[in-house]
Amino acid sequence: MTYHLTVLYHRPEDPAAFDDYYASTHAPLAARLPGLTAYTSVRPGQDPAGNDPAEYLVATLVFADEQAFHDAMASPEGRATATDLRHFASGGVAMLTGEATTYV
Amino acid sequence: MTYHLTVLYHRPEDPAAFDDYYASTHAPLAARLPGLTAYTSVRPGQDPAGNDPAEYLVATLVFADEQAFHDAMASPEGRATATDLRHFASGGVAMLTGEATTYV
Repeated sequence: MTYHLTVLYHRPEDPAAFDDYYASTHAPLAARLPGLTAYTSVRPGQDPAGNDPAEYLVATLVFADEQAFHDAMASPEGRATATDLRHFASGGVAMLTGEATTYV
Repeated sequence: MTYHLTVLYHRPEDPAAFDDYYASTHAPLAARLPGLTAYTSVRPGQDPAGNDPAEYLVATLVFADEQAFHDAMASPEGRATATDLRHFASGGVAMLTGEATTYV
């Protein structure tokens, strides 16, 4: 079992500025969260009908268990990462957390 | 680089029936996709304010690259997995695909 934080960023007002800020500032900040065992992001492409998805970026952060996740969020790095969202997540954000089931 | 399919299942009409079908039928079917290198799901809990998230289940399927993903979807197993969605995904589903960036 691992514990996942999935962050869904909705389409921002200025995608280029979002991309720059995420790569240069937010991702390096989040990557320093204590107890983080994996961290990836995907910028999804258009669906088969050619529509832009509502979600602009999907980030997945993996921790050993729920306690490790809560400890990370309560740490100075966690507070800094959460506070940093206001600097670029202009489209809004949904944060989904739960234990992961592994099939493959 | 890996290529990710993130499937966002919106809250179904009958969550218990969804859970049963997903575990017993859909996940075993999806797990047979050729070229699938990792497959996890998370059923997110309530947010800090106590609200149920709009997304009921988040599934992440990992492939080596975009071609491997398209080959998997075009295979008999891929067609069967896609067709199977209608049997349980009563709340609707969003499928997000893209190359993953790895930070940790």
